[in-house]
Amino acid sequence: MNHNIETALYLFPVTLGDTETERSLPSFNNEILSGIKHFIVENIRTARRFLKKTNPDFDIDSLSFYELNEHTAAEDISDYLKPLEDGHPMGILSEAGCPAIADPGAAVVSMAQTKRLKVIPLVGPSSIILSLMASGFNGQNFAFNGYLPVEAHARIKAIKDLEQKVYAENQTQIFIETPYRNDKLMADLLKTCRDNTRLCVAADITCAGESIATRTVRQWKKEKTVIGKMPCIFLIYK
Amino acid sequence: MNHNIETALYLFPVTLGDTETERSLPSFNNEILSGIKHFIVENIRTARRFLKKTNPDFDIDSLSFYELNEHTAAEDISDYLKPLEDGHPMGILSEAGCPAIADPGAAVVSMAQTKRLKVIPLVGPSSIILSLMASGFNGQNFAFNGYLPVEAHARIKAIKDLEQKVYAENQTQIFIETPYRNDKLMADLLKTCRDNTRLCVAADITCAGESIATRTVRQWKKEKTVIGKMPCIFLIYK
Repeated sequence: MNHNIETALYLFPVTLGDTETERSLPSFNNEILSGIKHFIVENIRTARRFLKKTNPDFDIDSLSFYELNEHTAAEDISDYLKPLEDGHPMGILSEAGCPAIADPGAAVVSMAQTKRLKVIPLVGPSSIILSLMASGFNGQNFAFNGYLPVEAHARIKAIKDLEQKVYAENQTQIFIETPYRNDKLMADLLKTCRDNTRLCVAADITCAGESIATRTVRQWKKEKTVIGKMPCIFLIYK
Repeated sequence: MNHNIETALYLFPVTLGDTETERSLPSFNNEILSGIKHFIVENIRTARRFLKKTNPDFDIDSLSFYELNEHTAAEDISDYLKPLEDGHPMGILSEAGCPAIADPGAAVVSMAQTKRLKVIPLVGPSSIILSLMASGFNGQNFAFNGYLPVEAHARIKAIKDLEQKVYAENQTQIFIETPYRNDKLMADLLKTCRDNTRLCVAADITCAGESIATRTVRQWKKEKTVIGKMPCIFLIYK
């Protein structure tokens, strides 16, 4: 089959965790994937696995991969868009979720924009948007803050500052944590936030163990919930 | 065909503008749709049209619709989740994009959370996330601010405050405008922001006229771009 697709840098989201691709990716993404030979990926091994999963007929050995992660030197990235500049469509594959949101992909996208190359983002699961939808919180004004500081004092101050923004700016505050620290973060939130502040904990989104619950801090304190090491996203609002 | 789906409030994104459902919705959403008889929608007419488009075999006359928009009184909403409480799965359909992000759906989701009913968000196109992915801007720290004020002084002040947050907090600032005011907003941004600040204009996302371009304010000034009345989203970053 001959795939003629527009020459552009395509941004491919990847399923969150162990779930079917049909659960969270439009079939259009797969059509575009089949027309691309050059991929920028965070990890070649998991990228190959994802490509095999979305399309078992994919001839993976015919593809070129360019690795982009925290070990990639800035000077190496400058060549990464060469195939696209030569007229070949390219793809950026995330490890999980949407590329260039919370991964190194943004540096390459920024370079593509500077070179005035066409960038086409594709639809897929964003744990930020999915958790916000299901939280019941303000979706017309929200901020994603990434990870909070690990150091105790800085962390408590960060939580207080975020809660302050909730009340002063009516802005939903969203943040994440490394899974093994989920319960520590939960304890810090319950210790620091007002009893009436609402906290949404969204775990294992789009996967078998999905659970998205909004309670007041007062209610969470009573329930003594243990989250465990699931991938998790936290939201606070009044 | 008998559809047995989990009893929950499902949040259904809708295509942005006139595009194929396969372009931006996973096939899973359609499977779940087929198992639901009770829908909360912003506009019944467009909801019926969307349902017909996703599945021409859908028996639309067998469905119940509950309208939720700016004309819906708060006291009317309190009954909306009755079918779910009685054990029937329900759906919230957005007009375009993700429900409960920039539409009235959040009030019903919040009520579902208070009643401890299960809420399941489904994947679909978010113009906020798609434009952020393609902008090349910071995706680890960003805020969506909805609409800026219309009044001239308040509007310029809002732009200055957002630009200030870009530099002080390394936070990408995202906002929208009513399409007929796009070029007015563009002019206000170019007049107000620093020459080195980068502005991304993302128009007609996932549709035929899609264009997502990041330039410095200085470059935009030279190019004298006319956006026109396309649905558009604006992002600034340093």
